[in-house]
Amino acid sequence: MKCRRCRGPAVIEVRRHNAGFCRDCFLHHCREQVRKTIEDFDMLQPGDRVLIAVSGGKDSLALWDILRDLGHDVDGLYLGLGIDDYSDESGNYARAYADARGAKLVKVDLPTDLGFDIPTGSRVARRAPCSACGLSKRHLFNQAAVDNGYDVVATGHNLDDEAAVLFGNVLRWSTDYLGRQLPVLPAGNGFVRKVKPLVRLGERETAAYCVLAGIDYQVEECPMAAGNRHLGYKDALNAIEDQSPGSKHAFYFGFLEKASPLFTPEAAREQENLQRCAQCGTPTTGEVCAFCRLAERARR
Amino acid sequence: MKCRRCRGPAVIEVRRHNAGFCRDCFLHHCREQVRKTIEDFDMLQPGDRVLIAVSGGKDSLALWDILRDLGHDVDGLYLGLGIDDYSDESGNYARAYADARGAKLVKVDLPTDLGFDIPTGSRVARRAPCSACGLSKRHLFNQAAVDNGYDVVATGHNLDDEAAVLFGNVLRWSTDYLGRQLPVLPAGNGFVRKVKPLVRLGERETAAYCVLAGIDYQVEECPMAAGNRHLGYKDALNAIEDQSPGSKHAFYFGFLEKASPLFTPEAAREQENLQRCAQCGTPTTGEVCAFCRLAERARR
Repeated sequence: MKCRRCRGPAVIEVRRHNAGFCRDCFLHHCREQVRKTIEDFDMLQPGDRVLIAVSGGKDSLALWDILRDLGHDVDGLYLGLGIDDYSDESGNYARAYADARGAKLVKVDLPTDLGFDIPTGSRVARRAPCSACGLSKRHLFNQAAVDNGYDVVATGHNLDDEAAVLFGNVLRWSTDYLGRQLPVLPAGNGFVRKVKPLVRLGERETAAYCVLAGIDYQVEECPMAAGNRHLGYKDALNAIEDQSPGSKHAFYFGFLEKASPLFTPEAAREQENLQRCAQCGTPTTGEVCAFCRLAERARR
Repeated sequence: MKCRRCRGPAVIEVRRHNAGFCRDCFLHHCREQVRKTIEDFDMLQPGDRVLIAVSGGKDSLALWDILRDLGHDVDGLYLGLGIDDYSDESGNYARAYADARGAKLVKVDLPTDLGFDIPTGSRVARRAPCSACGLSKRHLFNQAAVDNGYDVVATGHNLDDEAAVLFGNVLRWSTDYLGRQLPVLPAGNGFVRKVKPLVRLGERETAAYCVLAGIDYQVEECPMAAGNRHLGYKDALNAIEDQSPGSKHAFYFGFLEKASPLFTPEAAREQENLQRCAQCGTPTTGEVCAFCRLAERARR
Protein backbone atom coordinates (compact mmCIF):
# COMPACT_ATOMS: atom_id res chain seq x y z
CA MET A 1 0.00 0.00 0.00
CA LYS A 2 1.18 3.47 -0.92
CA CYS A 3 0.89 6.73 1.00
CA ARG A 4 -2.08 8.71 -0.29
CA ARG A 5 -0.17 11.96 -0.05
CA CYS A 6 3.42 11.29 -1.21
CA ARG A 7 3.01 7.86 -2.90
CA GLY A 8 5.89 6.45 -0.81
CA PRO A 9 5.45 3.18 1.13
CA ALA A 10 2.59 3.42 3.67
CA VAL A 11 3.07 2.40 7.31
CA ILE A 12 -0.57 2.71 8.38
CA GLU A 13 -3.96 2.22 6.75
CA VAL A 14 -7.02 4.22 7.83
CA ARG A 15 -9.95 2.21 6.51
CA ARG A 16 -12.66 4.82 6.92
CA HIS A 17 -10.63 7.19 4.75
CA ASN A 18 -9.76 4.30 2.44
CA ALA A 19 -6.17 5.54 2.59
CA GLY A 20 -2.67 4.62 3.66
CA PHE A 21 0.00 7.02 4.93
CA CYS A 22 3.76 7.05 5.47
CA ARG A 23 4.99 8.27 8.86
CA ASP A 24 5.39 11.95 8.01
CA CYS A 25 2.20 12.19 6.00
CA PHE A 26 0.25 10.43 8.76
CA LEU A 27 1.45 12.98 11.33
CA HIS A 28 0.55 15.71 8.84
CA HIS A 29 -2.87 14.07 8.33
CA CYS A 30 -3.55 14.06 12.09
CA ARG A 31 -2.56 17.69 12.42
CA GLU A 32 -4.77 18.58 9.47
CA GLN A 33 -7.74 16.77 11.00
CA VAL A 34 -7.28 18.73 14.22
CA ARG A 35 -6.73 22.00 12.39
CA LYS A 36 -9.91 21.43 10.38
CA THR A 37 -11.88 20.57 13.53
CA ILE A 38 -10.70 23.71 15.33
CA GLU A 39 -11.60 25.80 12.27
CA ASP A 40 -14.95 24.16 11.49
CA PHE A 41 -16.21 24.52 15.05
CA ASP A 42 -14.52 27.83 15.77
CA MET A 43 -12.83 26.27 18.80
CA LEU A 44 -9.87 28.58 19.37
CA GLN A 45 -9.21 32.25 18.72
CA PRO A 46 -5.79 33.85 18.19
CA GLY A 47 -4.23 34.61 21.57
CA ASP A 48 -6.37 32.14 23.50
CA ARG A 49 -4.63 30.64 26.52
CA VAL A 50 -5.44 26.91 26.39
CA LEU A 51 -5.32 24.51 29.33
CA ILE A 52 -5.20 20.90 28.22
CA ALA A 53 -6.41 18.10 30.47
CA VAL A 54 -3.47 15.69 30.39
CA SER A 55 -3.96 12.11 31.58
CA GLY A 56 -0.71 10.64 30.31
CA GLY A 57 -2.61 8.51 27.80
CA LYS A 58 -2.34 8.56 24.01
CA ASP A 59 -5.18 11.00 23.37
CA SER A 60 -4.19 13.87 25.63
CA LEU A 61 -0.50 13.63 24.75
CA ALA A 62 -1.24 13.49 21.01
CA LEU A 63 -3.54 16.49 21.40
CA TRP A 64 -0.94 18.45 23.35
CA ASP A 65 1.67 17.68 20.72
CA ILE A 66 -0.56 18.66 17.82
CA LEU A 67 -1.81 21.88 19.44
CA ARG A 68 1.80 22.89 20.10
CA ASP A 69 2.73 22.08 16.50
CA LEU A 70 -0.19 24.17 15.28
CA GLY A 71 1.20 27.11 17.26
CA HIS A 72 -1.33 27.36 20.06
CA ASP A 73 -0.44 28.60 23.53
CA VAL A 74 -1.08 25.43 25.57
CA ASP A 75 -0.18 24.40 29.11
CA GLY A 76 -1.02 21.03 30.63
CA LEU A 77 -2.82 20.12 33.84
CA TYR A 78 -2.40 16.65 35.24
CA LEU A 79 -4.84 15.45 37.92
CA GLY A 80 -3.49 12.80 40.26
CA LEU A 81 -6.60 10.71 40.88
CA GLY A 82 -5.12 8.48 43.58
CA ILE A 83 -5.73 5.24 41.68
CA ASP A 84 -2.67 3.35 43.00
CA ASP A 85 0.24 2.68 40.66
CA TYR A 86 -1.89 3.54 37.66
CA SER A 87 -2.02 7.20 38.64
CA ASP A 88 1.68 7.36 39.47
CA GLU A 89 2.67 5.83 36.15
CA SER A 90 0.27 8.02 34.17
CA GLY A 91 1.68 11.12 35.88
CA ASN A 92 5.19 10.05 34.96
CA TYR A 93 4.32 9.84 31.26
CA ALA A 94 2.76 13.32 31.39
CA ARG A 95 5.79 14.74 33.22
CA ALA A 96 8.27 13.08 30.82
CA TYR A 97 6.48 14.55 27.81
CA ALA A 98 6.43 18.05 29.28
CA ASP A 99 10.03 17.99 30.50
CA ALA A 100 11.45 16.72 27.22
CA ARG A 101 9.75 19.57 25.35
CA GLY A 102 10.03 22.36 27.88
CA ALA A 103 6.23 22.54 28.13
CA LYS A 104 4.46 23.73 31.27
CA LEU A 105 2.65 21.02 33.23
CA VAL A 106 0.80 21.78 36.45
CA LYS A 107 -0.11 18.90 38.71
CA VAL A 108 -3.05 18.81 41.11
CA ASP A 109 -3.02 15.75 43.33
CA LEU A 110 -6.42 14.76 44.71
CA PRO A 111 -5.15 12.94 47.84
CA THR A 112 -2.61 15.67 48.72
CA ASP A 113 -4.39 18.81 47.55
CA LEU A 114 -8.04 17.92 48.07
CA GLY A 115 -7.89 15.25 50.75
CA PHE A 116 -9.55 12.35 48.91
CA ASP A 117 -9.01 9.92 46.04
CA ILE A 118 -11.34 8.61 43.32
CA PRO A 119 -11.81 5.10 44.77
CA THR A 120 -12.98 6.67 48.08
CA GLY A 121 -15.02 9.36 46.36
CA SER A 122 -16.75 6.75 44.23
CA ARG A 123 -17.55 4.57 47.25
CA VAL A 124 -18.91 7.24 49.56
CA ALA A 125 -20.89 8.99 46.81
CA ARG A 126 -22.25 5.63 45.64
CA ARG A 127 -21.33 6.55 42.09
CA ALA A 128 -19.64 4.28 39.55
CA PRO A 129 -15.90 5.10 39.59
CA CYS A 130 -16.01 6.60 36.08
CA SER A 131 -18.91 8.81 37.12
CA ALA A 132 -17.14 10.12 40.25
CA CYS A 133 -13.96 10.59 38.23
CA GLY A 134 -15.67 12.46 35.38
CA LEU A 135 -17.47 14.71 37.81
CA SER A 136 -14.22 15.53 39.62
CA LYS A 137 -12.29 16.14 36.43
CA ARG A 138 -14.91 18.47 34.95
CA HIS A 139 -14.97 20.47 38.15
CA LEU A 140 -11.25 20.66 38.80
CA PHE A 141 -10.13 21.38 35.25
CA ASN A 142 -12.61 24.22 35.03
CA GLN A 143 -11.61 25.54 38.45
CA ALA A 144 -7.94 25.52 37.51
CA ALA A 145 -8.66 27.31 34.24
CA VAL A 146 -10.74 30.00 35.96
CA ASP A 147 -8.19 30.49 38.77
CA ASN A 148 -5.26 30.80 36.39
CA GLY A 149 -6.71 32.91 33.63
CA TYR A 150 -7.08 30.33 30.86
CA ASP A 151 -9.70 30.97 28.17
CA VAL A 152 -10.43 27.41 27.30
CA VAL A 153 -10.04 23.81 28.51
CA ALA A 154 -9.15 21.30 25.78
CA THR A 155 -9.75 17.58 26.32
CA GLY A 156 -8.55 14.57 24.36
CA HIS A 157 -11.94 12.98 23.64
CA ASN A 158 -11.58 11.22 20.30
CA LEU A 159 -14.12 10.01 17.75
CA ASP A 160 -14.44 6.61 19.45
CA ASP A 161 -15.12 8.26 22.81
CA GLU A 162 -17.69 10.68 21.46
CA ALA A 163 -19.45 8.05 19.34
CA ALA A 164 -19.67 5.72 22.36
CA VAL A 165 -21.00 8.49 24.62
CA LEU A 166 -23.49 9.41 21.91
CA PHE A 167 -24.55 5.77 21.62
CA GLY A 168 -25.14 5.60 25.38
CA ASN A 169 -27.12 8.84 25.33
CA VAL A 170 -29.18 7.61 22.40
CA LEU A 171 -29.83 4.19 23.94
CA ARG A 172 -31.45 5.98 26.89
CA TRP A 173 -32.59 9.00 24.84
CA SER A 174 -31.10 11.28 27.49
CA THR A 175 -32.34 14.37 25.74
CA ASP A 176 -30.57 16.74 28.14
CA TYR A 177 -27.17 15.12 27.51
CA LEU A 178 -27.91 14.92 23.79
CA GLY A 179 -28.57 18.65 23.80
CA ARG A 180 -25.17 19.34 25.30
CA GLN A 181 -23.00 16.76 23.51
CA LEU A 182 -21.11 19.22 21.37
CA PRO A 183 -17.43 19.52 20.44
CA VAL A 184 -17.47 23.10 21.78
CA LEU A 185 -19.28 24.33 24.84
CA PRO A 186 -19.15 28.13 25.04
CA ALA A 187 -17.98 29.93 28.16
CA GLY A 188 -20.61 31.16 30.56
CA ASN A 189 -22.17 30.62 33.95
CA GLY A 190 -18.77 30.26 35.63
CA PHE A 191 -17.42 27.83 33.05
CA VAL A 192 -14.62 28.53 30.60
CA ARG A 193 -15.03 27.33 27.00
CA LYS A 194 -14.55 23.59 26.55
CA VAL A 195 -13.29 22.09 23.29
CA LYS A 196 -12.64 18.59 21.93
CA PRO A 197 -10.29 19.03 18.98
CA LEU A 198 -9.70 15.26 18.46
CA VAL A 199 -13.22 14.34 17.36
CA ARG A 200 -12.11 13.65 13.80
CA LEU A 201 -9.47 11.11 14.93
CA GLY A 202 -10.15 7.57 16.13
CA GLU A 203 -8.28 6.05 19.06
CA ARG A 204 -6.27 3.80 16.78
CA GLU A 205 -5.05 6.97 15.07
CA THR A 206 -4.10 8.81 18.27
CA ALA A 207 -2.19 5.72 19.39
CA ALA A 208 -0.42 5.53 16.03
CA TYR A 209 0.30 9.26 16.23
CA CYS A 210 2.10 8.80 19.56
CA VAL A 211 4.05 5.78 18.35
CA LEU A 212 5.13 7.50 15.13
CA ALA A 213 5.88 10.81 16.87
CA GLY A 214 8.00 9.06 19.51
CA ILE A 215 5.71 9.91 22.45
CA ASP A 216 5.63 7.39 25.31
CA TYR A 217 2.24 7.07 26.93
CA GLN A 218 0.27 5.08 29.47
CA VAL A 219 -0.92 2.08 27.46
CA GLU A 220 -2.99 0.45 30.20
CA GLU A 221 -6.69 1.20 30.51
CA CYS A 222 -7.65 2.59 33.91
CA PRO A 223 -8.22 -0.45 36.16
CA MET A 224 -11.42 1.08 37.54
CA ALA A 225 -12.99 1.34 34.07
CA ALA A 226 -12.96 -2.43 33.41
CA GLY A 227 -16.41 -3.71 32.49
CA ASN A 228 -18.12 -0.32 32.43
CA ARG A 229 -20.97 0.33 30.01
CA HIS A 230 -18.97 2.80 27.96
CA LEU A 231 -16.56 0.03 26.94
CA GLY A 232 -19.53 -2.14 25.97
CA TYR A 233 -20.77 0.67 23.72
CA LYS A 234 -17.32 0.95 22.16
CA ASP A 235 -17.25 -2.79 21.46
CA ALA A 236 -20.68 -2.65 19.84
CA LEU A 237 -19.69 0.29 17.63
CA ASN A 238 -16.39 -1.36 16.75
CA ALA A 239 -18.33 -4.32 15.36
CA ILE A 240 -20.45 -1.93 13.27
CA GLU A 241 -17.36 0.01 12.11
CA ASP A 242 -15.66 -3.23 11.14
CA GLN A 243 -18.68 -4.12 8.98
CA SER A 244 -18.97 -0.62 7.47
CA PRO A 245 -15.90 1.61 7.88
CA GLY A 246 -16.95 5.21 8.41
CA SER A 247 -20.03 4.33 10.48
CA LYS A 248 -18.75 6.06 13.63
CA HIS A 249 -17.87 9.23 11.78
CA ALA A 250 -21.28 9.28 10.07
CA PHE A 251 -23.00 8.60 13.41
CA TYR A 252 -21.24 11.38 15.29
CA PHE A 253 -21.05 14.05 12.61
CA GLY A 254 -24.53 13.21 11.31
CA PHE A 255 -25.75 13.79 14.85
CA LEU A 256 -24.06 17.18 15.04
CA GLU A 257 -25.47 18.24 11.70
CA LYS A 258 -28.97 16.79 11.71
CA ALA A 259 -30.11 15.85 15.21
CA SER A 260 -28.24 17.94 17.76
CA PRO A 261 -30.16 21.13 16.84
CA LEU A 262 -33.40 19.34 17.75
CA PHE A 263 -32.17 18.58 21.25
CA THR A 264 -30.35 21.79 22.16
CA PRO A 265 -33.35 24.05 22.92
CA GLU A 266 -34.59 21.84 25.77
CA ALA A 267 -31.09 21.42 27.20
CA ALA A 268 -30.62 25.19 27.08
CA ARG A 269 -33.90 25.72 28.96
CA GLU A 270 -32.72 23.32 31.66
CA GLN A 271 -29.46 25.22 32.00
CA GLU A 272 -31.43 28.41 32.68
CA ASN A 273 -32.90 26.93 35.83
CA LEU A 274 -29.51 26.36 37.47
CA GLN A 275 -28.43 28.21 40.59
CA ARG A 276 -24.96 28.73 42.10
CA CYS A 277 -23.39 26.13 44.42
CA ALA A 278 -23.28 27.61 47.95
CA GLN A 279 -19.71 26.36 48.40
CA CYS A 280 -17.90 26.82 45.09
CA GLY A 281 -20.24 28.94 42.97
CA THR A 282 -20.55 26.38 40.16
CA PRO A 283 -23.98 26.24 38.47
CA THR A 284 -26.01 23.38 39.92
CA THR A 285 -29.56 22.10 40.25
CA GLY A 286 -29.33 21.81 44.05
CA GLU A 287 -27.97 24.07 46.78
CA VAL A 288 -24.53 22.43 46.81
CA CYS A 289 -23.07 21.02 43.58
CA ALA A 290 -22.43 17.29 43.10
CA PHE A 291 -18.66 17.71 43.28
CA CYS A 292 -18.70 19.61 46.57
CA ARG A 293 -21.04 17.01 48.06
CA LEU A 294 -18.79 14.18 46.87
CA ALA A 295 -15.63 15.88 48.14
CA GLU A 296 -17.19 16.66 51.51
CA ARG A 297 -18.32 13.08 52.08
CA ALA A 298 -15.03 11.63 50.83
CA ARG A 299 -12.98 13.79 53.20
CA ARG A 300 -14.80 12.57 56.31
CA MET B 1 -37.29 -20.50 39.13
CA LYS B 2 -40.98 -19.97 39.75
CA CYS B 3 -43.66 -18.52 37.52
CA ARG B 4 -44.18 -14.85 38.41
CA ARG B 5 -47.93 -15.17 37.97
CA CYS B 6 -48.97 -18.56 39.42
CA ARG B 7 -45.83 -19.51 41.40
CA GLY B 8 -45.71 -22.91 39.68
CA PRO B 9 -42.48 -24.13 38.03
CA ALA B 10 -41.28 -21.74 35.30
CA VAL B 11 -40.37 -22.98 31.81
CA ILE B 12 -38.97 -19.71 30.49
CA GLU B 13 -37.14 -16.70 31.91
CA VAL B 14 -37.51 -13.22 30.44
CA ARG B 15 -34.51 -11.33 31.74
CA ARG B 16 -35.61 -7.82 30.90
CA HIS B 17 -38.77 -8.38 32.96
CA ASN B 18 -36.69 -10.15 35.60
CA ALA B 19 -39.37 -12.86 35.57
CA GLY B 20 -40.04 -16.52 34.86
CA PHE B 21 -43.28 -17.98 33.52
CA CYS B 22 -44.92 -21.39 33.24
CA ARG B 23 -46.37 -22.33 29.83
CA ASP B 24 -49.88 -21.00 30.34
CA CYS B 25 -48.80 -17.83 32.09
CA PHE B 26 -46.22 -17.12 29.38
CA LEU B 27 -48.86 -17.37 26.66
CA HIS B 28 -51.05 -15.11 28.81
CA HIS B 29 -48.11 -12.71 29.26
CA CYS B 30 -47.57 -12.50 25.50
CA ARG B 31 -51.26 -11.85 24.86
CA GLU B 32 -51.25 -9.16 27.54
CA GLN B 33 -48.22 -7.46 26.00
CA VAL B 34 -49.98 -7.36 22.64
CA ARG B 35 -53.29 -6.23 24.17
CA LYS B 36 -51.49 -3.44 26.00
CA THR B 37 -49.65 -2.37 22.84
CA ILE B 38 -52.88 -2.25 20.82
CA GLU B 39 -54.53 -0.21 23.57
CA ASP B 40 -51.62 2.15 24.29
CA PHE B 41 -51.18 3.06 20.65
CA ASP B 42 -54.85 2.91 19.70
CA MET B 43 -54.02 0.41 16.97
CA LEU B 44 -57.36 -1.32 16.37
CA GLN B 45 -60.96 -0.23 16.69
CA PRO B 46 -63.94 -2.55 17.29
CA GLY B 47 -65.13 -3.98 13.97
CA ASP B 48 -61.84 -3.32 12.14
CA ARG B 49 -61.08 -5.85 9.44
CA VAL B 50 -57.41 -6.73 9.88
CA LEU B 51 -55.14 -8.18 7.20
CA ILE B 52 -52.02 -9.75 8.68
CA ALA B 53 -48.85 -10.10 6.64
CA VAL B 54 -47.98 -13.78 7.17
CA SER B 55 -44.51 -15.00 6.30
CA GLY B 56 -44.70 -18.45 7.92
CA GLY B 57 -42.09 -17.38 10.52
CA LYS B 58 -42.49 -17.20 14.29
CA ASP B 59 -43.46 -13.54 14.48
CA SER B 60 -46.32 -13.41 12.02
CA LEU B 61 -47.80 -16.74 13.17
CA ALA B 62 -47.57 -15.76 16.84
CA LEU B 63 -49.20 -12.42 16.01
CA TRP B 64 -51.99 -14.10 14.04
CA ASP B 65 -52.61 -16.51 16.91
CA ILE B 66 -52.68 -13.78 19.54
CA LEU B 67 -54.90 -11.43 17.53
CA ARG B 68 -57.38 -14.30 17.01
CA ASP B 69 -57.27 -15.10 20.73
CA LEU B 70 -57.93 -11.46 21.54
CA GLY B 71 -61.05 -11.64 19.38
CA HIS B 72 -60.00 -9.56 16.40
CA ASP B 73 -61.29 -10.17 12.88
CA VAL B 74 -58.05 -11.18 11.14
CA ASP B 75 -57.31 -12.80 7.80
CA GLY B 76 -53.86 -13.68 6.57
CA LEU B 77 -52.05 -12.81 3.35
CA TYR B 78 -49.05 -14.83 2.31
CA LEU B 79 -46.73 -13.46 -0.38
CA GLY B 80 -44.81 -16.09 -2.34
CA LEU B 81 -41.53 -14.27 -2.98
CA GLY B 82 -40.04 -16.85 -5.32
CA ILE B 83 -36.97 -17.49 -3.15
CA ASP B 84 -36.55 -21.19 -4.07
CA ASP B 85 -37.36 -23.84 -1.48
CA TYR B 86 -37.38 -21.23 1.27
CA SER B 87 -40.56 -19.62 -0.07
CA ASP B 88 -42.29 -22.98 -0.67
CA GLU B 89 -41.54 -24.17 2.86
CA SER B 90 -42.55 -20.85 4.44
CA GLY B 91 -45.83 -20.94 2.53
CA ASN B 92 -46.50 -24.48 3.78
CA TYR B 93 -46.14 -23.36 7.42
CA ALA B 94 -48.55 -20.48 6.84
CA ARG B 95 -51.06 -22.78 5.07
CA ALA B 96 -50.80 -25.46 7.79
CA TYR B 97 -51.50 -22.90 10.52
CA ALA B 98 -54.55 -21.52 8.70
CA ASP B 99 -56.00 -24.90 7.73
CA ALA B 100 -55.67 -26.35 11.24
CA ARG B 101 -57.61 -23.39 12.67
CA GLY B 102 -60.06 -22.71 9.91
CA ALA B 103 -58.54 -19.27 9.38
CA LYS B 104 -58.65 -17.50 6.04
CA LEU B 105 -55.32 -17.26 4.24
CA VAL B 106 -54.98 -15.62 0.83
CA LYS B 107 -51.87 -16.28 -1.19
CA VAL B 108 -50.35 -13.97 -3.76
CA ASP B 109 -47.48 -15.53 -5.65
CA LEU B 110 -45.04 -13.08 -7.16
CA PRO B 111 -43.76 -15.32 -9.99
CA THR B 112 -47.29 -16.52 -10.97
CA ASP B 113 -49.38 -13.44 -10.25
CA LEU B 114 -46.93 -10.62 -10.93
CA GLY B 115 -44.45 -12.19 -13.31
CA PHE B 116 -41.24 -11.77 -11.30
CA ASP B 117 -39.49 -13.00 -8.17
CA ILE B 118 -37.44 -11.19 -5.52
CA PRO B 119 -34.00 -12.43 -6.64
CA THR B 120 -34.70 -11.08 -10.15
CA GLY B 121 -36.31 -7.89 -8.86
CA SER B 122 -33.35 -7.25 -6.62
CA ARG B 123 -30.88 -7.81 -9.44
CA VAL B 124 -32.53 -5.67 -12.10
CA ALA B 125 -33.36 -2.84 -9.70
CA ARG B 126 -29.82 -2.96 -8.28
CA ARG B 127 -31.24 -3.00 -4.78
CA ALA B 128 -30.12 -5.22 -1.90
CA PRO B 129 -32.49 -8.22 -1.78
CA CYS B 130 -33.99 -7.10 1.56
CA SER B 131 -34.64 -3.66 0.10
CA ALA B 132 -36.40 -5.00 -3.00
CA CYS B 133 -38.33 -7.44 -0.82
CA GLY B 134 -39.43 -4.81 1.71
CA LEU B 135 -40.50 -2.46 -1.07
CA SER B 136 -42.56 -5.20 -2.74
CA LYS B 137 -44.14 -6.34 0.52
CA ARG B 138 -45.15 -2.83 1.57
CA HIS B 139 -46.73 -2.24 -1.80
CA LEU B 140 -48.52 -5.56 -2.22
CA PHE B 141 -49.86 -5.86 1.32
CA ASN B 142 -51.32 -2.39 1.08
CA GLN B 143 -52.72 -3.06 -2.37
CA ALA B 144 -54.38 -6.27 -1.18
CA ALA B 145 -55.87 -4.49 1.84
CA VAL B 146 -57.25 -1.65 -0.29
CA ASP B 147 -58.64 -4.02 -2.94
CA ASN B 148 -60.37 -6.27 -0.42
CA GLY B 149 -61.77 -3.74 2.00
CA TYR B 150 -59.48 -4.26 4.98
CA ASP B 151 -59.07 -1.35 7.41
CA VAL B 152 -55.59 -2.15 8.58
CA VAL B 153 -52.47 -4.18 7.76
CA ALA B 154 -50.78 -5.78 10.79
CA THR B 155 -47.15 -6.91 10.59
CA GLY B 156 -45.09 -9.09 12.92
CA HIS B 157 -42.23 -6.67 13.55
CA ASN B 158 -41.00 -7.41 17.06
CA LEU B 159 -38.95 -5.39 19.54
CA ASP B 160 -35.66 -6.75 18.19
CA ASP B 161 -36.65 -5.78 14.65
CA GLU B 162 -37.75 -2.29 15.56
CA ALA B 163 -34.76 -1.62 17.80
CA ALA B 164 -32.39 -2.76 15.03
CA VAL B 165 -34.14 -0.60 12.42
CA LEU B 166 -34.03 2.31 14.85
CA PHE B 167 -30.32 1.71 15.44
CA GLY B 168 -29.68 1.77 11.69
CA ASN B 169 -31.70 4.97 11.28
CA VAL B 170 -29.87 6.57 14.19
CA LEU B 171 -26.43 5.52 12.97
CA ARG B 172 -27.13 7.44 9.76
CA TRP B 173 -29.46 9.99 11.40
CA SER B 174 -31.97 9.36 8.64
CA THR B 175 -34.31 12.00 9.98
CA ASP B 176 -37.06 11.19 7.46
CA TYR B 177 -37.16 7.52 8.48
CA LEU B 178 -36.89 8.47 12.15
CA GLY B 179 -39.94 10.67 11.72
CA ARG B 180 -41.97 7.78 10.37
CA GLN B 181 -40.72 4.89 12.54
CA LEU B 182 -43.90 4.51 14.56
CA PRO B 183 -45.84 1.43 15.68
CA VAL B 184 -48.96 2.88 14.03
CA LEU B 185 -49.08 4.72 10.73
CA PRO B 186 -52.52 6.21 10.17
CA ALA B 187 -54.46 5.63 6.97
CA GLY B 188 -54.24 8.27 4.29
CA ASN B 189 -52.87 9.06 0.86
CA GLY B 190 -53.99 5.70 -0.54
CA PHE B 191 -52.54 3.70 2.35
CA VAL B 192 -54.55 1.75 4.90
CA ARG B 193 -53.52 1.98 8.56
CA LYS B 194 -50.39 -0.05 9.42
CA VAL B 195 -49.82 -1.47 12.90
CA LYS B 196 -47.04 -3.42 14.63
CA PRO B 197 -48.63 -5.03 17.70
CA LEU B 198 -45.56 -7.15 18.61
CA VAL B 199 -43.26 -4.26 19.55
CA ARG B 200 -43.34 -5.19 23.24
CA LEU B 201 -42.16 -8.77 22.55
CA GLY B 202 -38.62 -9.84 21.67
CA GLU B 203 -37.91 -12.46 19.03
CA ARG B 204 -36.94 -14.99 21.65
CA GLU B 205 -40.42 -14.54 23.12
CA THR B 206 -42.28 -14.92 19.83
CA ALA B 207 -40.29 -18.10 19.15
CA ALA B 208 -41.10 -19.41 22.63
CA TYR B 209 -44.74 -18.46 22.11
CA CYS B 210 -44.93 -20.60 18.96
CA VAL B 211 -43.14 -23.54 20.59
CA LEU B 212 -45.35 -23.44 23.69
CA ALA B 213 -48.54 -22.84 21.69
CA GLY B 214 -47.77 -25.78 19.39
CA ILE B 215 -47.34 -23.67 16.23
CA ASP B 216 -44.88 -25.00 13.64
CA TYR B 217 -43.00 -22.25 11.85
CA GLN B 218 -40.19 -21.63 9.38
CA VAL B 219 -37.10 -21.66 11.60
CA GLU B 220 -34.57 -20.79 8.90
CA GLU B 221 -33.59 -17.19 8.25
CA CYS B 222 -34.22 -16.09 4.69
CA PRO B 223 -31.10 -17.14 2.71
CA MET B 224 -30.99 -13.75 0.98
CA ALA B 225 -30.71 -11.86 4.29
CA ALA B 226 -27.39 -13.46 5.31
CA GLY B 227 -24.77 -10.84 6.12
CA ASN B 228 -27.03 -7.82 5.74
CA ARG B 229 -26.51 -4.74 7.88
CA HIS B 230 -29.72 -5.23 9.80
CA LEU B 231 -28.37 -8.49 11.25
CA GLY B 232 -25.19 -6.66 12.26
CA TYR B 233 -27.30 -4.09 14.11
CA LYS B 234 -29.16 -6.90 15.85
CA ASP B 235 -25.89 -8.52 16.95
CA ALA B 236 -24.61 -5.23 18.33
CA LEU B 237 -27.81 -4.60 20.27
CA ASN B 238 -27.85 -8.18 21.53
CA ALA B 239 -24.44 -7.59 23.09
CA ILE B 240 -25.77 -4.44 24.79
CA GLU B 241 -28.92 -6.22 25.94
CA ASP B 242 -26.85 -9.05 27.35
CA GLN B 243 -24.85 -6.52 29.37
CA SER B 244 -27.95 -4.57 30.49
CA PRO B 245 -31.26 -6.40 30.06
CA GLY B 246 -34.00 -3.96 29.12
CA SER B 247 -31.73 -1.81 26.94
CA LYS B 248 -33.63 -2.53 23.73
CA HIS B 249 -36.97 -1.76 25.32
CA ALA B 250 -35.62 1.50 26.77
CA PHE B 251 -34.05 2.39 23.41
CA TYR B 252 -37.20 1.84 21.37
CA PHE B 253 -39.84 3.10 23.79
CA GLY B 254 -37.64 5.99 24.92
CA PHE B 255 -37.40 6.98 21.29
CA LEU B 256 -41.17 6.91 20.85
CA GLU B 257 -41.70 8.97 23.96
CA LYS B 258 -38.86 11.47 23.88
CA ALA B 259 -37.28 11.73 20.42
CA SER B 260 -39.82 10.71 17.80
CA PRO B 261 -41.90 13.90 18.25
CA LEU B 262 -38.81 15.93 17.34
CA PHE B 263 -38.45 14.14 14.01
CA THR B 264 -42.07 13.80 12.90
CA PRO B 265 -42.72 17.40 11.71
CA GLU B 266 -40.04 17.24 9.03
CA ALA B 267 -41.12 13.79 7.89
CA ALA B 268 -44.71 14.99 7.65
CA ARG B 269 -43.63 17.96 5.52
CA GLU B 270 -41.83 15.59 3.16
CA GLN B 271 -44.96 13.45 2.83
CA GLU B 272 -46.90 16.52 1.70
CA ASN B 273 -44.75 16.84 -1.37
CA LEU B 274 -45.65 13.40 -2.72
CA GLN B 275 -47.60 12.91 -5.95
CA ARG B 276 -49.51 9.86 -7.25
CA CYS B 277 -47.76 7.08 -9.19
CA ALA B 278 -48.89 7.26 -12.83
CA GLN B 279 -49.32 3.48 -12.89
CA CYS B 280 -50.75 2.40 -9.54
CA GLY B 281 -51.73 5.63 -7.80
CA THR B 282 -49.45 5.10 -4.79
CA PRO B 283 -47.94 8.28 -3.34
CA THR B 284 -44.38 8.70 -4.63
CA THR B 285 -41.66 11.29 -5.09
CA GLY B 286 -41.28 10.56 -8.83
CA GLU B 287 -43.72 10.03 -11.67
CA VAL B 288 -43.79 6.24 -11.28
CA CYS B 289 -43.36 4.64 -7.83
CA ALA B 290 -40.33 2.52 -6.94
CA PHE B 291 -42.36 -0.70 -6.88
CA CYS B 292 -43.85 -0.19 -10.35
CA ARG B 293 -40.40 0.63 -11.72
CA LEU B 294 -38.93 -2.48 -10.12
CA ALA B 295 -41.78 -4.72 -11.33
CA GLU B 296 -41.59 -3.35 -14.87
CA ARG B 297 -37.85 -3.93 -15.15
CA ALA B 298 -38.06 -7.37 -13.52
CA ARG B 299 -40.76 -8.55 -15.96
CA ARG B 300 -38.66 -7.78 -19.05
